[in-house]
Amino acid sequence: MSILIKEVLLEHDIVDIYIENDSIRQVGTALSVPAQKTINGKGKAAIPGFVNGHTHAAMTLARGWGDDIPLEQWLHNRIWPYEAKLTEEDVYWGAKLSCLEMIKTGTTCFNDMYAFFHGTARAVEEMGLRATLSATLFDHFDENKAEAAKKQILQYFSEAQQYSDRITFSPGPHAIYTVSGKTLQWVRDFANDHHLRVHLHLAESRTEYNNAVQQFGLSPVRYLHQLGVLAPHLIIAHCLWLDDEEIQLLADHEVKVVHNPNSNLKLASGFQFKYEEMKQAGITVGIGTDGCASSNNLDMVEAAKTASLLQKGWRFDPTAMPAPEAFACATLNGAKVLGINAGKIAAGCLADLCLVDLNIPAFTPNFDFISNLMYAANSSCIDTVICNGQLLMENKHVPGEEEILTKAAAIAHNLMYR
Amino acid sequence: MSILIKEVLLEHDIVDIYIENDSIRQVGTALSVPAQKTINGKGKAAIPGFVNGHTHAAMTLARGWGDDIPLEQWLHNRIWPYEAKLTEEDVYWGAKLSCLEMIKTGTTCFNDMYAFFHGTARAVEEMGLRATLSATLFDHFDENKAEAAKKQILQYFSEAQQYSDRITFSPGPHAIYTVSGKTLQWVRDFANDHHLRVHLHLAESRTEYNNAVQQFGLSPVRYLHQLGVLAPHLIIAHCLWLDDEEIQLLADHEVKVVHNPNSNLKLASGFQFKYEEMKQAGITVGIGTDGCASSNNLDMVEAAKTASLLQKGWRFDPTAMPAPEAFACATLNGAKVLGINAGKIAAGCLADLCLVDLNIPAFTPNFDFISNLMYAANSSCIDTVICNGQLLMENKHVPGEEEILTKAAAIAHNLMYR
Repeated sequence: MSILIKEVLLEHDIVDIYIENDSIRQVGTALSVPAQKTINGKGKAAIPGFVNGHTHAAMTLARGWGDDIPLEQWLHNRIWPYEAKLTEEDVYWGAKLSCLEMIKTGTTCFNDMYAFFHGTARAVEEMGLRATLSATLFDHFDENKAEAAKKQILQYFSEAQQYSDRITFSPGPHAIYTVSGKTLQWVRDFANDHHLRVHLHLAESRTEYNNAVQQFGLSPVRYLHQLGVLAPHLIIAHCLWLDDEEIQLLADHEVKVVHNPNSNLKLASGFQFKYEEMKQAGITVGIGTDGCASSNNLDMVEAAKTASLLQKGWRFDPTAMPAPEAFACATLNGAKVLGINAGKIAAGCLADLCLVDLNIPAFTPNFDFISNLMYAANSSCIDTVICNGQLLMENKHVPGEEEILTKAAAIAHNLMYR
Repeated sequence: MSILIKEVLLEHDIVDIYIENDSIRQVGTALSVPAQKTINGKGKAAIPGFVNGHTHAAMTLARGWGDDIPLEQWLHNRIWPYEAKLTEEDVYWGAKLSCLEMIKTGTTCFNDMYAFFHGTARAVEEMGLRATLSATLFDHFDENKAEAAKKQILQYFSEAQQYSDRITFSPGPHAIYTVSGKTLQWVRDFANDHHLRVHLHLAESRTEYNNAVQQFGLSPVRYLHQLGVLAPHLIIAHCLWLDDEEIQLLADHEVKVVHNPNSNLKLASGFQFKYEEMKQAGITVGIGTDGCASSNNLDMVEAAKTASLLQKGWRFDPTAMPAPEAFACATLNGAKVLGINAGKIAAGCLADLCLVDLNIPAFTPNFDFISNLMYAANSSCIDTVICNGQLLMENKHVPGEEEILTKAAAIAHNLMYR
């Protein structure tokens, strides 16, 4: 397929964008290229699609199922009983709902971690998004469970070949308190052998930090360092509890970090994410939403805004994480975290992009488009979404969205009340 | 006019709502009342309109004009030179743009503070919203300026009679560092004589707190107490820097407080708003957005969400400010702050309400409507807005919105670059 977008705002210029197959081929003025589809970009701005650096897509089914209650109560009475009932079909519909929400809010690629790999993979395949899908891995420090978990990873890895290039498999060891050091080392070797990313929760709460010190005699990052698993392929979500020396360890090993500000606030995990220090150290920081059971939506515009406001707030510094940096974390940095050639609109990049409707109050006046996008707008400004060169949404409508809403709602209600 | 809304979700029930003239007359099931306009409420939820407790409407014209820069630079290089050029006509168009944005995001009433009272009043009158409009008052501790300011307040107060009941005049002494104690006392007496609210910025920044201690020998709240101006008619915006004794003083005098979380974060004024302590003390706490020069939008859904997340975050307590309380602060409490009979959907209340479109991902599944509204949705879920019994928006469209966007953008660009 080929798409030509005419006269759209890109940063400070009005340009044409020509897309062929999966890539952006030309960005320029007055392009005269024949295309199968032409889009009038007047009154719109083009932005790279957002990259959601950390989520659990299928958990959209548990949206609003246990807010405002203590963590232990939430896990024991709400989430675990619910997850025990889940089937691959449920995960498929939960992931479809998530893909729909992500498309509507301008996300073209996400980094997931969940069970029932094929449920999520089928949904992504059908919905047209790009994703790195981590199969969650637990061993609870039990050798038999570790063997079973590794076997499953090997199986999913081989089965993942059936999907298109938009889907990348990755192992997702859950956390250092649910996966043994030995298994983390096995995952490291497996990822090295097959050039995969590794997706891990780390240093999310003060409790996790204190328990690591007690259990391993080391803080979470130092423990990973001692295990020898810090590596450029490692993506760690949250990373709230660490000191300057640990930031340097992450930088030295080119570990990628994903900040999830709304989840961190909602679950009261911590709010002093050390963005400035990580940036200074040269760490690639992406932004994520986390799953909808903890943070309730998959909206990257909102996540990027919260990230920026929170930096300014707790540092008492109105210049912290300016809008262009928040935007970069949510787009280009996210692509770097996942190692994909996207996150910017330039010839040669993957054609993962959105058009923003400028004829709304949030962009009036429009002195600074990125500032308006990050601080004034919400994700309802997203009008058109293209992923891998395919048109997924036009005029704010995704084909089949009504059926997904109806079906996912029925499945979610059935799951909770059956 | 009479409006009958059929089969709409209200909290946990499906009801009909009958509106006549400016009020809600009946809420019940299967109402058979003839009405001039019938709205099908299926797939929608009814909520009271949001009450924006603190804003500077016309500053929408300066949206995105100087983000991410230090406060002094922002004031000296951006805001003051801009405000020096403003005319009443500019304020009128800025306020029209704000009213449009507020309608589109579900706000039916707001508490404003700005110059050129008639510019804002004309805009509100035409757009159909309800507002308490404070004319900003400064004397900079100069007796001549104080006399001029008082004269202007008297004049505006008398001229305000020309507007409809939707518009309430109030004096708006800017802050304790720009208005003398003597003038604050005059304002108190004037407000008492005429049963008006008084709208004041207070305890917004640590600098303001420290300066008050230095200049007056007292912290901001204690200084107001010493002046004898703490009163039930007093609405203070921000109120970030105070201790438990000061909270008790505010409670004892039934002072109203408006929290502006996004502005406080963006300007790095402070983030530890003492909501729980104020609630315990019995203080009525509303929520506001502040003006668009500091916080960039007038979106009360977003402001309420940030308020809730921030409480959980800095307190390390996921149960802090649960969704129903955040919602109440943004609706019913706001109405109490302004002393209007709105903020809930019940017979006898003013007909200030919205319909929410439930057929979107944010309300799928819909286990808990208020939780979804506060934590998952954004303001684009607002479908229909009724204020004072009049239909201001239906199917997300406000009559004349295109003209307002065009005109306000032209005025804003002209102002900045002329």
